[in-house]
Amino acid sequence: MIRTPEEGAPPLTQHSPAGFFRDRTITELADRLRAGETSAVELTRAALRTIDELDGELNAFTAVDREGAVQAAEKADAELAEGLDRGPLHGIPVAVKDIIEVAGLPTAMGSAHFAEHVSTSDAECVRRLRTGGAVLVGKTTTHEFAFGPTGDSAHRGPSRNPHDTTRITGGSSGGSGAAVAAGMVPLALGTDTGGSVRIPAALCGVVGFKPAYGAISTDGVFPLAQSLDHVGVLARTPQDCRTGYRVLAGLRSTPSGESGETASIGWLDPGALHPTDPEITRIARAALDVDGLAVREVGIRDPDVVHRGFLGIQFSEAYANHAERVAEHPELFTDDVLDRLRQAARTAGWQHVRALAAREEWRREVHELLSEVDLLATPTTCVVATELGRREIPVDGTAADVRGALIGLTKPWNLAGVPAVSVPAGVLGGLPVGLQLVGRPGREDVLLAVAARIGG
Amino acid sequence: MIRTPEEGAPPLTQHSPAGFFRDRTITELADRLRAGETSAVELTRAALRTIDELDGELNAFTAVDREGAVQAAEKADAELAEGLDRGPLHGIPVAVKDIIEVAGLPTAMGSAHFAEHVSTSDAECVRRLRTGGAVLVGKTTTHEFAFGPTGDSAHRGPSRNPHDTTRITGGSSGGSGAAVAAGMVPLALGTDTGGSVRIPAALCGVVGFKPAYGAISTDGVFPLAQSLDHVGVLARTPQDCRTGYRVLAGLRSTPSGESGETASIGWLDPGALHPTDPEITRIARAALDVDGLAVREVGIRDPDVVHRGFLGIQFSEAYANHAERVAEHPELFTDDVLDRLRQAARTAGWQHVRALAAREEWRREVHELLSEVDLLATPTTCVVATELGRREIPVDGTAADVRGALIGLTKPWNLAGVPAVSVPAGVLGGLPVGLQLVGRPGREDVLLAVAARIGG
Repeated sequence: MIRTPEEGAPPLTQHSPAGFFRDRTITELADRLRAGETSAVELTRAALRTIDELDGELNAFTAVDREGAVQAAEKADAELAEGLDRGPLHGIPVAVKDIIEVAGLPTAMGSAHFAEHVSTSDAECVRRLRTGGAVLVGKTTTHEFAFGPTGDSAHRGPSRNPHDTTRITGGSSGGSGAAVAAGMVPLALGTDTGGSVRIPAALCGVVGFKPAYGAISTDGVFPLAQSLDHVGVLARTPQDCRTGYRVLAGLRSTPSGESGETASIGWLDPGALHPTDPEITRIARAALDVDGLAVREVGIRDPDVVHRGFLGIQFSEAYANHAERVAEHPELFTDDVLDRLRQAARTAGWQHVRALAAREEWRREVHELLSEVDLLATPTTCVVATELGRREIPVDGTAADVRGALIGLTKPWNLAGVPAVSVPAGVLGGLPVGLQLVGRPGREDVLLAVAARIGG
Repeated sequence: MIRTPEEGAPPLTQHSPAGFFRDRTITELADRLRAGETSAVELTRAALRTIDELDGELNAFTAVDREGAVQAAEKADAELAEGLDRGPLHGIPVAVKDIIEVAGLPTAMGSAHFAEHVSTSDAECVRRLRTGGAVLVGKTTTHEFAFGPTGDSAHRGPSRNPHDTTRITGGSSGGSGAAVAAGMVPLALGTDTGGSVRIPAALCGVVGFKPAYGAISTDGVFPLAQSLDHVGVLARTPQDCRTGYRVLAGLRSTPSGESGETASIGWLDPGALHPTDPEITRIARAALDVDGLAVREVGIRDPDVVHRGFLGIQFSEAYANHAERVAEHPELFTDDVLDRLRQAARTAGWQHVRALAAREEWRREVHELLSEVDLLATPTTCVVATELGRREIPVDGTAADVRGALIGLTKPWNLAGVPAVSVPAGVLGGLPVGLQLVGRPGREDVLLAVAARIGG
């Protein structure tokens, strides 16, 4: 639900310790900007102030562009005053994951390899943000080279979960998850190769949306595994994700005509893909008990097709992107990522061939599933946020690799290339639980409308 | 040049020791069939007789279907008598490489793994032959699993070159090359992953045509490397290759409207791709000195793109097709192919990823080259037919791997997926030399018309 001013949002001049943007949506801010009740400079200063206050503890940001942000905000205010309205992100502070190039800012990819790298041009998605009038306030912490769903292995330290700073944000877009969850910004860009937008969204209790493969350009985004990489957005609400998505994808900012009231949902038992905390399964499933939603159980034929397909492709592409760095400067990697890259190097060419065939098989199956129901639903992750640095955890009675428990339910939709969103479904032991909804390419509005009914 | 009856073709009742079809084209035979000067049964019995006479020495055939061929010929004759004309292959004896399924016949893939395998259905290309009225006389020797350009490693022994039976036919479609060269059949099917139609055509002194990737279905053809595999044809003339190609590709049997008289040719120095016998280069280049052809030199940017692309893809796909056989029954392979498969297994997934990228780069370059000239030309192979079993040979002053010297100039066009033909260009030390012409997909008629001007 989008909270309107009448319903009691805090006055804009008051700074909540939980973060200025904690309870404010882009929709609301955009209205207030145009009503003259606030300004882009005021919002930007609020973002910078919140970052100052909270980021020492959260490490969500790797770089903050105070001067550039204020200048951009002044320009945005001047433009609005002159009648130039760039659309729904005009004057809105946005943070960008640190593997996405932003001209003039450091882009370290979470790695000592790029510790001194300053971008000389904008990624295509950043150009679209600027054209849309957004105010870029800084870069957010990423797991090194985006190669890890925990978000706790980066050359400048882990991002920390605002709900419990001894725990992970999830990753790899961990800083973006923490920044939105803590109310530092109302919108952050992430990338998602196996769940890297949806996982931190779930673990931090915000909404994370990965559109269809290719819907947002990855030009200027450092590749992890290019045939699986997606640019995505994290925000407070599905509606705000939709707003950010449409700007980034170059779509017109029209209102959604979808209510999501009659969508049919296929519930996919998460255990078919990965052992899952039964409480998480219960919470996520219960979140679907909303009037009008027709939920039925669906199954998949062979989860091994997903596992082989995803791993074979991700590992082969990831190592192709890093082979020379591993050979020449292994010491610059974090141990975590170097270990995974060395594992990735051992994938054989013939396994990659079979992985590509498995992907085609999986895509056909997902296409069939999504012709029977409008959306598929699972929990987003099999566990809630784990302790920083932890790599094993018991899940539903068996010892599980934390990484596998984080990406087990999200990676299938990267392999399929279909849109997926994580929305807050509840809380377990004080930590957020995410529900994941998966839809058809081109039908993002239905997906996000149903998401709004559940977690908006 | 297509020899017409008036120009003195031998009478059809006389059996030349060099093989009945040695100097007869499909075009001529089709005319005589329709003029009632011969019959499908007569042609079929001539093929069977020639096989009986010559195959003990050449080992071109792995199976001969005497009964089925005569029955098919009788049917073809009856149909023609009734006025049912299935087109230019009606009543024409054809041989099929032994990795292509022909219902009811053994399909051993040149391997002890399939020594007892009898096909239960036709490959799609075989169905098209039958629908076109062709008479299938038997299966031709292939290098084991089509994985070798020498044609001398198969579980039932090597095919032998009709020009010198101590030498290779080239492969992998070696039996098809020998069968056409010796006049056992006027047309034979082959497959071509890195040159396996063009190489035996060049080494045996016939014409071999590989159309564009996907132009002829590979359904029912045992894969070597499926994204590089092509079905192709071997015959006496480019015109006969065109006839066979159009039947196999499901195209109407219309006359070619192309004369090839004004085509522009880009001569690609073979040394840029692989060290080449200078005499072969000279002979192939001289074959282009035909009135009307505008020949100019062209270059390629980086041959390593071709080598990396081809090897990474071929090895990865080939091993994916054989991993279980290598693991479970290595002893059933020939040493030659087992060694190559074990080498193939060592290609890494990340190398396959880079090979796929290299292929895209090469395709762009070939597209550019073929927008500047109508055709590209090189020798077909870097050496003439080598001794059976030989694996190293001096070429232009350096020691070369025989395989590399055979496929070095043909494999680039599998990687690009463009049509290519080998035509006889001359003789070196009594052994045939091939000229290779490469054209644009969809412009096969220009390619084959120019080929006919040179080697038809």
